[in-house]
Amino acid sequence: MADSRAPDSTRRSERSRRAIYDAALALVSEVGYGRTTIEGIAARAGVGKQTIYRWWPSKGAVLLEAFLDLSDQAAREADGGEGIHEIPDTGDLEADLRLVLRATVDEMNDPKYDVPSRALAAEGIVDAELGVEFARKMLEPQLQLYVKRLRAAQEAGEVRQDLDPRIALELLVGPVAHRWLLRTLPLTHAYADTIVEYALHGLAPRPPARH
Amino acid sequence: MADSRAPDSTRRSERSRRAIYDAALALVSEVGYGRTTIEGIAARAGVGKQTIYRWWPSKGAVLLEAFLDLSDQAAREADGGEGIHEIPDTGDLEADLRLVLRATVDEMNDPKYDVPSRALAAEGIVDAELGVEFARKMLEPQLQLYVKRLRAAQEAGEVRQDLDPRIALELLVGPVAHRWLLRTLPLTHAYADTIVEYALHGLAPRPPARH
Repeated sequence: MADSRAPDSTRRSERSRRAIYDAALALVSEVGYGRTTIEGIAARAGVGKQTIYRWWPSKGAVLLEAFLDLSDQAAREADGGEGIHEIPDTGDLEADLRLVLRATVDEMNDPKYDVPSRALAAEGIVDAELGVEFARKMLEPQLQLYVKRLRAAQEAGEVRQDLDPRIALELLVGPVAHRWLLRTLPLTHAYADTIVEYALHGLAPRPPARH
Repeated sequence: MADSRAPDSTRRSERSRRAIYDAALALVSEVGYGRTTIEGIAARAGVGKQTIYRWWPSKGAVLLEAFLDLSDQAAREADGGEGIHEIPDTGDLEADLRLVLRATVDEMNDPKYDVPSRALAAEGIVDAELGVEFARKMLEPQLQLYVKRLRAAQEAGEVRQDLDPRIALELLVGPVAHRWLLRTLPLTHAYADTIVEYALHGLAPRPPARH
């Protein structure tokens, strides 16, 4: 139980944990996923190998937590400290989606997130087992935030009832990931706004609205 | 001039070129982009290193042509021999887009294309210079086929006039690439059809159409 530990020991543990996350992300950025090792992380973090093995069973497990922590940091920076654990619901879906896609664009344009995230994505693309694990544990929970927001929008009449939110969200995140990973064109706020507008209102012409 | 060469020599050259493409794609699939070398390609193709250097200045140049040839093969298989160098225009945009996205899904589910394409994508994700070069030379010409088809649809009144086709196409290819690269959920024809429907008609409810 954490409460039974002396405060100093807890602080020391937290410092070690932070150093291990930082070392893991720095290494994966510099040498890639394949050449990152528990030994390398320990050496860079200034902790013993046993400290890492006490907390995590494998390299993949350390890196998963380091990435979860990194995306938590990004969320805290985006909303000024709280950490976004859901997409805001102001009653204006288009505005809420613009906010979250702009924040995603900012994250992808920030080397702190961009470089290690690319290293992880690249490894998951060629290594099916790793790719599936990270999709399930890291990516899917983030996508479920869109599912929740789109379901609320369906209830509010802002999204078609006949639509599967789990697929619909891919019209928002897919284009942004495509630009980011495949480096076709710049990722900007204007681009994020356009994607939201096109996804909500469709490419086909609309008859005049009744309201 | 090619015409001045004896037919035998031309056939021999074509055979070598094919062997070099096959060797390059097999190597990049097996050992990754970084560890594929001109020497390795030559040895596997059963040609001299100088044969490769006579035709291509670098490893990147051989691989680019090998991938262009591969995607040409995929197009020939998809349409029974012709090679799709444009998206069909039957006057029914939704049907034409379903056809091309289904063909893309088939390609991504075929190990012959999937494995080397993943190796290339993974390398471009971490190597900016390579990623930008392949986006410009290989990906962008394919995306321009969508631009052309969407422009024709704008002229035919099937797509909104106020829309940038170069961005709009990303609502079609982005979701498919997202599933393929990030391994979230299966890539199926039903998924391709749904993406086309959602992209064209939008997530927001539509007022009743006038026609």
